[in-house]
Amino acid sequence: MSQKDIRVGVENLEQFCIEVFVATGFSAQAARTQADVLVWADLRGVDSHGVMRIPRYVEWLRSGAMRGDAVPEIASDLGAAGVVEAAQAPGAVAMSFAMNDAMERARAHAIGWTLVRHTTHSGAVGYYAAMAARDQMIGIAVATSRPNMAYHGARAAGVATTPIAIAVPGGPHGMLLLDMSTSALPIGKIRAARAKGEPLPGIVALTADGTPTNDASEAAFPLPLGGPKGSGLSLLLECLTGVLIHNPLLEPALAGSQKGHAQNGLAAAIDIAAFSGVADFEAQIVALAQSIKGLPPAEPGGEVLLPGEPELRESVRRRDGIPIPRKTWLRLMETAQGLGVSPPPIAE
Amino acid sequence: MSQKDIRVGVENLEQFCIEVFVATGFSAQAARTQADVLVWADLRGVDSHGVMRIPRYVEWLRSGAMRGDAVPEIASDLGAAGVVEAAQAPGAVAMSFAMNDAMERARAHAIGWTLVRHTTHSGAVGYYAAMAARDQMIGIAVATSRPNMAYHGARAAGVATTPIAIAVPGGPHGMLLLDMSTSALPIGKIRAARAKGEPLPGIVALTADGTPTNDASEAAFPLPLGGPKGSGLSLLLECLTGVLIHNPLLEPALAGSQKGHAQNGLAAAIDIAAFSGVADFEAQIVALAQSIKGLPPAEPGGEVLLPGEPELRESVRRRDGIPIPRKTWLRLMETAQGLGVSPPPIAE
Repeated sequence: MSQKDIRVGVENLEQFCIEVFVATGFSAQAARTQADVLVWADLRGVDSHGVMRIPRYVEWLRSGAMRGDAVPEIASDLGAAGVVEAAQAPGAVAMSFAMNDAMERARAHAIGWTLVRHTTHSGAVGYYAAMAARDQMIGIAVATSRPNMAYHGARAAGVATTPIAIAVPGGPHGMLLLDMSTSALPIGKIRAARAKGEPLPGIVALTADGTPTNDASEAAFPLPLGGPKGSGLSLLLECLTGVLIHNPLLEPALAGSQKGHAQNGLAAAIDIAAFSGVADFEAQIVALAQSIKGLPPAEPGGEVLLPGEPELRESVRRRDGIPIPRKTWLRLMETAQGLGVSPPPIAE
Repeated sequence: MSQKDIRVGVENLEQFCIEVFVATGFSAQAARTQADVLVWADLRGVDSHGVMRIPRYVEWLRSGAMRGDAVPEIASDLGAAGVVEAAQAPGAVAMSFAMNDAMERARAHAIGWTLVRHTTHSGAVGYYAAMAARDQMIGIAVATSRPNMAYHGARAAGVATTPIAIAVPGGPHGMLLLDMSTSALPIGKIRAARAKGEPLPGIVALTADGTPTNDASEAAFPLPLGGPKGSGLSLLLECLTGVLIHNPLLEPALAGSQKGHAQNGLAAAIDIAAFSGVADFEAQIVALAQSIKGLPPAEPGGEVLLPGEPELRESVRRRDGIPIPRKTWLRLMETAQGLGVSPPPIAE
């Protein structure tokens, strides 16, 4: 933890988040869900998706881009598939609702496939995939948004960084959890390098005028993961979410006819029990995880890590509290003051 | 076309493939399917998945690793999901059967999700995704296999290159078709660089003893796409195919208890008509494709390409015939002779 960081205990931070969201018009339950998704990311060391987002959320709540009191509803019930109309509900509320819906469909049809339209910032999509894994299902979660990543071969943003998460129960840590973007580097890491004055780890971004760069201060948007692979995957995910459910995000933004924050999502669940004994499945995941951990490491004395394992290393934060950079803390306090919410107690 | 290549007309090449496969015990229909999948790849310029595979297939047919007369069957009927027991049937036969099954399930349940076990080399998985797109559905196809790609952070193969294809109908060429592997470079391109004596385009592979290399002649297996992303995605796809349907491929291979060729697969279809008007959907894909094509190109005078577009450029092969390198041709002729099959006529 840097000397500049403020440390806040997890429960106190959660309570603070809940109070902030209730003050902006969330129901108590919606506030709890939104707080849980943000603090979950902080607990995993993914600060870019944690409480630092709160000031921006509050701006969106004021402008109406996010609606704290909106209640997601099933717009189409298609059996194994469903469409959720989120009506600008908080992303955490909409995506949790969608994953619960997908799990219910999976119980009846072996797979549940729930698409979400008109949602807002989903946060860490791994949270929703993990919901399924904790309930003995395989979970898949995707969030799509407006263009914020270069399209391969173009000198402009054409697609979105489109995070994808997949979780399965089993293994030494209770689940394997992959949470990745379709970009060469997450936008959060570009911002972090910029804040630290460090270069990017290679030519992984374009400047605002479309020049490839490793200079974090000049980087406007990331390049896609593996060139045409990352941008192609992102483009196809737009087709099978927004385009399919009458809320395209890329084309209207590129045409200039739609501005402002907008997301769609996918929550899918596969009911392991329909295919296999759950205990058998989990035992096989344990064996697979062991064989991966047993591979010879690239560096002498190194360790081979499972998907989700690096983030679990951060769980010391549960004991010691979440470190919040002073600049983030000041913005949070400003937001809280505007809402009449008291600051959380600071840990030792 | 290199001076060393033999050129064969598409229909003649297909007929030749059919005769080869019938001679090894395929039914006429199975032979047609297998021929179609191989020649489809050649037509798209993906020679690594085309007729050059035939000699290897014939070896597998002789050893019993592939069974030309095996008929895939539904092992579990779970409503929206299904499991196909392929019984070592030719991969093209098993995966086509599975995609037809997924499409039938999608007609009833909006989504169909069909897993395939005990299949053999699937070839170009884009073929199966495209089947769905030709029938106004969204298609997803994945093939999993034994470890042939480095796991991130390890100096050994731990996961598979795991090709993933997604196809949607619409756009200027009738569909958008993404067909990508989870590796930094396909194994076929490593082989091609080796054959030409060229270096790899960067450190994208490990040698047999686990040293990172850009030397194609020393490369034993590719590195994963984007480090932990590619190997994580491959690992999770093993979990939601082989591990789920009682035919794990990675762990038994890493433990040394299972050797020889083995694949599993996933064929999924989403019925657009259940969500949206198909004509509306396709019109939106056209608009999206136009806005992507209209992005400013990275290089002056360059062109921004859609997923599947580079491969379509090769369709001149339909008119001029498929160029077959002389070495591949000689191996094909040897195989044909052993089966008593006549060579196809050579074009001009």
